[in-house]
Amino acid sequence: MALDLTASALDITRTICNIPSVSGGEAALADEIEAAVRGCAHLEVLRHGNTIVAQTRLGRSQRVVIAGHIDTVPINDNVPTRDIEAEGVAYLWGRGTVDMKAGVAVQLKLAAELTDPAVDITWMWYDNEEVDASQNGLFLLAEAHPELFEADFAILGEPSDGRVEGGCNGTLRAVVRVHGVRAHSARSWIGENAIHGAAPILARLAEYRAREVKVEGLAYREGLNAVSIRGGVAGNVIPDLCEVEVNYRFAPSRSVDEAEAHVRAAFAGFEVEITDAAAGARPGLDAPIAQRFLEAVGGEAHAKYGWTDVARFSAMGVPAVNYGPGDPHLAHHDDERVPVTQIEQVERGLRAWLSRS
Amino acid sequence: MALDLTASALDITRTICNIPSVSGGEAALADEIEAAVRGCAHLEVLRHGNTIVAQTRLGRSQRVVIAGHIDTVPINDNVPTRDIEAEGVAYLWGRGTVDMKAGVAVQLKLAAELTDPAVDITWMWYDNEEVDASQNGLFLLAEAHPELFEADFAILGEPSDGRVEGGCNGTLRAVVRVHGVRAHSARSWIGENAIHGAAPILARLAEYRAREVKVEGLAYREGLNAVSIRGGVAGNVIPDLCEVEVNYRFAPSRSVDEAEAHVRAAFAGFEVEITDAAAGARPGLDAPIAQRFLEAVGGEAHAKYGWTDVARFSAMGVPAVNYGPGDPHLAHHDDERVPVTQIEQVERGLRAWLSRS
Repeated sequence: MALDLTASALDITRTICNIPSVSGGEAALADEIEAAVRGCAHLEVLRHGNTIVAQTRLGRSQRVVIAGHIDTVPINDNVPTRDIEAEGVAYLWGRGTVDMKAGVAVQLKLAAELTDPAVDITWMWYDNEEVDASQNGLFLLAEAHPELFEADFAILGEPSDGRVEGGCNGTLRAVVRVHGVRAHSARSWIGENAIHGAAPILARLAEYRAREVKVEGLAYREGLNAVSIRGGVAGNVIPDLCEVEVNYRFAPSRSVDEAEAHVRAAFAGFEVEITDAAAGARPGLDAPIAQRFLEAVGGEAHAKYGWTDVARFSAMGVPAVNYGPGDPHLAHHDDERVPVTQIEQVERGLRAWLSRS
Repeated sequence: MALDLTASALDITRTICNIPSVSGGEAALADEIEAAVRGCAHLEVLRHGNTIVAQTRLGRSQRVVIAGHIDTVPINDNVPTRDIEAEGVAYLWGRGTVDMKAGVAVQLKLAAELTDPAVDITWMWYDNEEVDASQNGLFLLAEAHPELFEADFAILGEPSDGRVEGGCNGTLRAVVRVHGVRAHSARSWIGENAIHGAAPILARLAEYRAREVKVEGLAYREGLNAVSIRGGVAGNVIPDLCEVEVNYRFAPSRSVDEAEAHVRAAFAGFEVEITDAAAGARPGLDAPIAQRFLEAVGGEAHAKYGWTDVARFSAMGVPAVNYGPGDPHLAHHDDERVPVTQIEQVERGLRAWLSRS
């Protein structure tokens, strides 16, 4: 079944959800997308791996990147999709409906439809967003074709409940480590219990009060949490090592270096190893183009808490926002489902802004 | 090479250490022991699996059980044995020298030699002491032949540095559990972090002051320790479960029920699951036969901290002590080694007490 971009965004969502594309297995869907956009005379198409780029070349004074990932987390008996109704609301249910094939469907429909948009548009549909950052299709595209990321504004269609979510928090992971001395647990006083030694680490985490930080008018809520704890050798041994892995989510007003200093201060007196960090993204909503976008799609912008690829654009100096159908709390959920009206709402919002008035 | 019980205890130790008998693989050594004691006309021999029992039937007014396990923990490049000297002391080095083939060797030598002892003796050499209690040869023998355990006193040849160690602490293991609510770590306030919830558990453990309890004149030192902690789902998920496994070592004046109540009280407010418990053993040194034993071997009795099979005899109403060559701290150690003079000292001690004066 060839992908028909004149169908409704709902129908396109249904079609592309039913072409499985778990991370690493996006080729079939990428083929369909490539064939469909190559049929559009107003688009210049480039394929890079399983990432498809389609651009208008209309000589507009401004260019916007609109991007979405085409992979999903593993299917769990939730493909094919189903049309369901719950409490009077019509939903499309199934893997990918929220994260983020409804957003991709809206983008595909508008890519075909908008032959004469108000700004030049670079559409990007990329693979491997749900897995290790080193495989991320947008990352690999930026390495190979940095010129494609020269733009005035970027929109990622990640689920944001049909609202505009600006920027994103940064994320940092660290291991906080306590060393002890092994001994037989029948003679525990000869050893030094590393798990007991971790008591102040958990106490500091339990007492920690996270900040809420306003950045360019949006309120970013932070968090410092243990995501893992491990210790123990055997049932009769005093353990000599306890490791607590913590995840710090920090407002985009703080750099990675500042975030690291904050975590080291929080666990002063303990061995702290930073294992992973990614900067946040400022919302960038003070740019005039962003203001016009907000006016066109209506409603007010909110802070994005989760890290998304907007940070990649932000790092390249391109203001970027998340704007897509679907409740982000249902992403990766086995009960993933998107309200039909939200698909239509985002489609109307993007069309209103992109259409030449 | 047949086992020659007229050899020195040191030579017998060397010989039986060089017949590997890691738990589950004791058959070859049990065969040797069986053949050797069946050659002694004054002993009535019974084999039960890989456990060998040899008894005198002299009609004495009192009967003593003297027992030792013949299995070892896994070999780690420390068989065959080596005769070594360190800081002027002669040692036999290798797996099993301490735990507890030197003790077994002394028992085997005296079993053959003492044809006319002061008390009737039931010698027991059993398998699978180092593994799960359900496989323990002494346990299985007691199930099949409880009459063999009718005795006035029992001596286990477990390593006790050539001192008499009376009774033993009990041991109880429990899992203390904290439940939470999962959430994405970017929106941690929606969840409830189970690892943070474990902070009071670790604080109580760190602050816990263990008792030292005098029981029948011996000082038993207790201990309450975390031996394991586990929690965490993924690097971006607020964990919904944290489990702390604790090990309580308690003086033999406390029953298992009392120990359980103590642990439940220590973690009041938390879910506590008792996973494993074994009663301690009172030293039983107030019995006249025990007093005579102490006088004969010389020196003063000490409390045993680690749980041993003396508790099995104690539970059957038989006072029992540990008395064997070797430093218990070197048991299971790759550098396991027994001072030659300690083998001879224990041999002299047991002979002095068991010989008819």
